[in-house]
Amino acid sequence: MEKVIFTPIGVVINAFDEPTDPKTMRNSISTLALDPKYAGALEGLEKFSHLQVIYYFDRSPGYVENIHPMGDPSIPMRGVLATRSPCRPNPIALTLVKMISVKGSDVEVAGLDALNGTPILDLKPYVNHFDAPVGLERERDSSYKPWDCGSKM
Amino acid sequence: MEKVIFTPIGVVINAFDEPTDPKTMRNSISTLALDPKYAGALEGLEKFSHLQVIYYFDRSPGYVENIHPMGDPSIPMRGVLATRSPCRPNPIALTLVKMISVKGSDVEVAGLDALNGTPILDLKPYVNHFDAPVGLERERDSSYKPWDCGSKM
Repeated sequence: MEKVIFTPIGVVINAFDEPTDPKTMRNSISTLALDPKYAGALEGLEKFSHLQVIYYFDRSPGYVENIHPMGDPSIPMRGVLATRSPCRPNPIALTLVKMISVKGSDVEVAGLDALNGTPILDLKPYVNHFDAPVGLERERDSSYKPWDCGSKM
Repeated sequence: MEKVIFTPIGVVINAFDEPTDPKTMRNSISTLALDPKYAGALEGLEKFSHLQVIYYFDRSPGYVENIHPMGDPSIPMRGVLATRSPCRPNPIALTLVKMISVKGSDVEVAGLDALNGTPILDLKPYVNHFDAPVGLERERDSSYKPWDCGSKM
């Protein structure tokens, strides 16, 4: 299949230069330091309580087919795509975080489990209607036109 | 920033060759036809009720800084990173879907809003503890060791 190429939109800045107790990481603050050219693209993000951060597991040890979930040998091995391990075919991470603030092109968040210096690929506002299973049971708004995105409409 | 290169793990197969009423798409069935070499990496995925599908908006018209959310001119323009529009810096999509079945390297799901032929980058099991805002308020399990992923531990 044809390769897909992305340019990170910024990097994570926090206190964790190496893997740390996940509870500590999830209770900490990180700055998503985006390229300043994206300051305008963040307009309105501060109104959301939570964000989904898609980042690159740049220190993934590489793909393995099966793994003990959460590195716990007491849990039976499982296909890596049935876990959230970094050792997946494309080392893409997704973490839900709490919004603290947006200042220029810096987004301060709580709960990110990424290491310091991690490349950020995308941010999305968390919307319960789309991102929680309950939303899938409800009727969707038929006026939603995700592909209709002319440059200045 | 250094570019990040991924190889799609498969493609979406469904009835939608072009943008369609989103409600219709969200009520439809798609097959995530993965590369057969990933059949083993799917082991255990069928036990989850929902999946997060990360895919490539391969038909995105390109980046725009501000946009009317959901293509609706009655909603004030907003920074594209505060929306789920395809017109983002890295055209990465994330959709929560319902699991129907896993057969070999094919995963059948309901609720995917991707077009036929869309490249799939990653699949993750939906886990309420991590993926719903309520999880962020609770204590995390300190035994979680996401980085500890030796090839056969």
